[in-house]
Amino acid sequence: MSEQRLQQASSWTRRREEKERRMQVVMRWMSGPVLPTDKTVEALEALVVAGDRIVLEGDNQKQADFLSRSLVKVDAKKVHDLHLIISSISRPEHLTLFELGIAKKVDFAFAGPQSLRVAQLLEDGVLEIGAVHTYVELYARLLVDLIPNVVLVCAEQADREGNLFTGPNTEDTPVIVEAAAFHDAIVIVQVNEIVEKLPRVDIPGSWIDVVVQADKPFAVEPLFTRDPRHINEIQILMGMMIIRGIYERHQVKSLNHGIGFDTAAIELLLPTYGESLGLRGKICEHWALNPHPTLIPAIESGWVKSIHSFGSEVGMDDYIKARPDVFFTGRDGSLRSNRVLCQLAGQYAVDAFIGATLQLDGEANSSTVMTGRLAGFGGAPNMGHDPHGRRHTSNAWLDLRKDSNPLTRGRKIVVQTLETFASGGVPAFVETLDAVEVAKKAGMPVAPIMIYGDDVSHVVTEEGISYLYKTEGIEERRRAIAAIAGVSPIGIKAKAEETVALRRKGIVALPEDLGVHRLEAGRSLLAARSMEDLVAWSGGLYQPPAKFRSW
Amino acid sequence: MSEQRLQQASSWTRRREEKERRMQVVMRWMSGPVLPTDKTVEALEALVVAGDRIVLEGDNQKQADFLSRSLVKVDAKKVHDLHLIISSISRPEHLTLFELGIAKKVDFAFAGPQSLRVAQLLEDGVLEIGAVHTYVELYARLLVDLIPNVVLVCAEQADREGNLFTGPNTEDTPVIVEAAAFHDAIVIVQVNEIVEKLPRVDIPGSWIDVVVQADKPFAVEPLFTRDPRHINEIQILMGMMIIRGIYERHQVKSLNHGIGFDTAAIELLLPTYGESLGLRGKICEHWALNPHPTLIPAIESGWVKSIHSFGSEVGMDDYIKARPDVFFTGRDGSLRSNRVLCQLAGQYAVDAFIGATLQLDGEANSSTVMTGRLAGFGGAPNMGHDPHGRRHTSNAWLDLRKDSNPLTRGRKIVVQTLETFASGGVPAFVETLDAVEVAKKAGMPVAPIMIYGDDVSHVVTEEGISYLYKTEGIEERRRAIAAIAGVSPIGIKAKAEETVALRRKGIVALPEDLGVHRLEAGRSLLAARSMEDLVAWSGGLYQPPAKFRSW
Repeated sequence: MSEQRLQQASSWTRRREEKERRMQVVMRWMSGPVLPTDKTVEALEALVVAGDRIVLEGDNQKQADFLSRSLVKVDAKKVHDLHLIISSISRPEHLTLFELGIAKKVDFAFAGPQSLRVAQLLEDGVLEIGAVHTYVELYARLLVDLIPNVVLVCAEQADREGNLFTGPNTEDTPVIVEAAAFHDAIVIVQVNEIVEKLPRVDIPGSWIDVVVQADKPFAVEPLFTRDPRHINEIQILMGMMIIRGIYERHQVKSLNHGIGFDTAAIELLLPTYGESLGLRGKICEHWALNPHPTLIPAIESGWVKSIHSFGSEVGMDDYIKARPDVFFTGRDGSLRSNRVLCQLAGQYAVDAFIGATLQLDGEANSSTVMTGRLAGFGGAPNMGHDPHGRRHTSNAWLDLRKDSNPLTRGRKIVVQTLETFASGGVPAFVETLDAVEVAKKAGMPVAPIMIYGDDVSHVVTEEGISYLYKTEGIEERRRAIAAIAGVSPIGIKAKAEETVALRRKGIVALPEDLGVHRLEAGRSLLAARSMEDLVAWSGGLYQPPAKFRSW
Repeated sequence: MSEQRLQQASSWTRRREEKERRMQVVMRWMSGPVLPTDKTVEALEALVVAGDRIVLEGDNQKQADFLSRSLVKVDAKKVHDLHLIISSISRPEHLTLFELGIAKKVDFAFAGPQSLRVAQLLEDGVLEIGAVHTYVELYARLLVDLIPNVVLVCAEQADREGNLFTGPNTEDTPVIVEAAAFHDAIVIVQVNEIVEKLPRVDIPGSWIDVVVQADKPFAVEPLFTRDPRHINEIQILMGMMIIRGIYERHQVKSLNHGIGFDTAAIELLLPTYGESLGLRGKICEHWALNPHPTLIPAIESGWVKSIHSFGSEVGMDDYIKARPDVFFTGRDGSLRSNRVLCQLAGQYAVDAFIGATLQLDGEANSSTVMTGRLAGFGGAPNMGHDPHGRRHTSNAWLDLRKDSNPLTRGRKIVVQTLETFASGGVPAFVETLDAVEVAKKAGMPVAPIMIYGDDVSHVVTEEGISYLYKTEGIEERRRAIAAIAGVSPIGIKAKAEETVALRRKGIVALPEDLGVHRLEAGRSLLAARSMEDLVAWSGGLYQPPAKFRSW
């Protein structure tokens, strides 16, 4: 026993010793935790070692882009075969790392803008995929079987002790830094500026190893901004159906909205259509979502009690600062977002999740992974499932029970919205998801399904709503989906008499069954019809990014 | 529109103004964020207002007990009808708050030591229960529909700027403080001492409003310590079955163990029985659990690659400090635990959860809530379910698939262990869980089920293992459970010929089917048979609390 211990005695601090060894190399350039900007590439060559597991902060909003641009410049003879962990493969240089041989394997959650290239590099054998995750699943693994050696993150400001102010886009930074700082990994932060005194501390300096001032502020995408001008009447009709047939019916008090025009339409219908139904104070009070500009009219009209956010949204800072009763803000007045905690809220504390999908099969399995595109899912599967670990009840949750047996639990409302045909006349309802073929080609044992059919409680199209949670067995589920699938390959299988029976059982509802009048579904129902309207609602506090301005 | 806005203009900062108003009262006693100890009760009377929603840090380990003892002393005429949110109702004064009328409603996750009194006060109408939660569910609601007004937490040390050092028991403090600090709630911290310089910062001072030095160090319970002396041969037999029939069979690399002698037995069998099977490096490498002293021999024998922890464990500090490659530690060398992140790891990143239960019904629903006891579940339901939001694969996860259709997902291994009869000859397998009657009596719409039968993949008793994930339909599940339920009311329903058929199908395995010899199941197989043995394995670094010492 004691021999064994002696034998291993030198091995219990390997990570710490290796970290010290690497830090020694760069110490000579540093002043406290601060590294001069022009030493970044050289420092990365010393701090990152071939074969390392590294986390690069890059989500669908903010990006540690100075560090990713610097990492591309390291000598691939020295630093190669890295295992890259990244929430969102969003920038071209993320994939250049693989082309140069600096990185070899990737574990990720989302690859929207780069999804075509990811698929191509995978096929070419240039890139190896560990797995496609949800965001929280990926963070969870940083604490278990994907413990990193080095993490590269970003913040707005640092002081000379290395304390960080993330600004409103706190997002993933705390969890990435925590996983590294408390397991002897090296934490490198790019900041927009180094200041004497921070407005507030988001991450303590004793968790940080290297601070470097970036050549320019980190990139942030206005991903959650939808111009009301582009909301069409089909989306308005679907929004009306959702308000009546889901939110009102089940008394949905707390919810998450995915990104998209479908949900933007709902947000803009609350202060008009929702108000006319007398629903203010009865539905949609507590939100877990990013500060969507299209929520401004609902907030201003007193619909919204609270919003906890994954990240911030470009242009919303001043508005958020002026509405601290609604948003989570710090002493400095600006938003504190936190993707882990908001995903936790979205999973366990809200009644409903609504998201759009690109494809849905006859059993309601859905995916945004399409042929030639390995997009991933981000957070959707985490919020878009029935969390079996939930134990508290709410009216909405209980309303989905099939019987009142005390052993029968409620369930989360998980809504998938889609129009029966996507733009270009491509059917959105398909016999087999593209994801199945993608999995086969990529050698994945399980297809990259975003939301599984058995987790979906409602499907909404321009035809109507299917209350899938009421169906018994797979055959009835199939019929309920076909009934609202229009003339898509799935929809043409629907038989009129079966649909009548499903309507009678309350499993399918057409607009008329919900008291929704198709002719009313006009743009005049939207509380804001343009970006200018949103700015006006905000009293000039909302400042849309240039690309959304026409004035 | 603009009128509406004007009308509400004064209402967007109500929380901030109210906080400022309250803080003004206590400012005169404070020096920076520091309040003199003798002003605590008076300050609470000013900072907490009747009807407030307050969070009191109290989990199954550490307790903000100076603050809870002080809160009991406030004038109930001034401060009453509080809505208390607490992870674990563990201390007598938590319930005294209700008897005095200071608090009225409670939302909680666990009530082990006080579960009898909770049930009594509920029946007497003295206490009102919002819901019984899991830990993470309760935190999630702090960001959504249970946003607090005041939070009372504890830490080891603060400096004069209010920065906190939590010590190894970081646990719930970060999430409670974050929910409050970023929504204009008041954050009050008791600390063991106020120092000039902290060993490390766990929570930044800009998140803290009031620091008070407690009359004595905060209470911590050594809840995860199991004296190997009390491990019996039935537990050893079950441990051997689990190692062969679950860990080896499914190649379980990452896992969580609940508290108990069943799992302590497994931990102590790894370096002996597991080693003899050649399993080191093949199973049980990554752990999400508290630093169980019974894991020391496995760690010392090179079984364990990493452990991320919910909290710490009394007496383990020096050992942890000496093993940073295994544990998550800070720059100061001591553990950084984090209950939210470890629950996230336990839910999304590990292959298996094993926990003991007190009662199991014929369909494998289980609960620790018994007649007259409202115990709650803590974290078990969060880790003890199949997380539908998981998308990455592992060998163990894939091994539970029923077919290789790319649309068929894997599932988490969720094991419930129990002996067919509890001490005193009470059957553990029952027709109807006590929880059903408790729910009826308490007016709960859903019974407080810890783990639902459909989430359980394996049940293990001294009779054998049921591989429930292989069963088709509820009837086969019932038969599989009965087959290993001994002579309990459920077990006597088993028919010998059905059990033979289930064994042939691989749905039930008796020890002999697994190559486990009952006669080998002796205490000599345990790597440590006493607390002294554990201390010896640790090279004297582990220092058990007095109550576990006989020397």
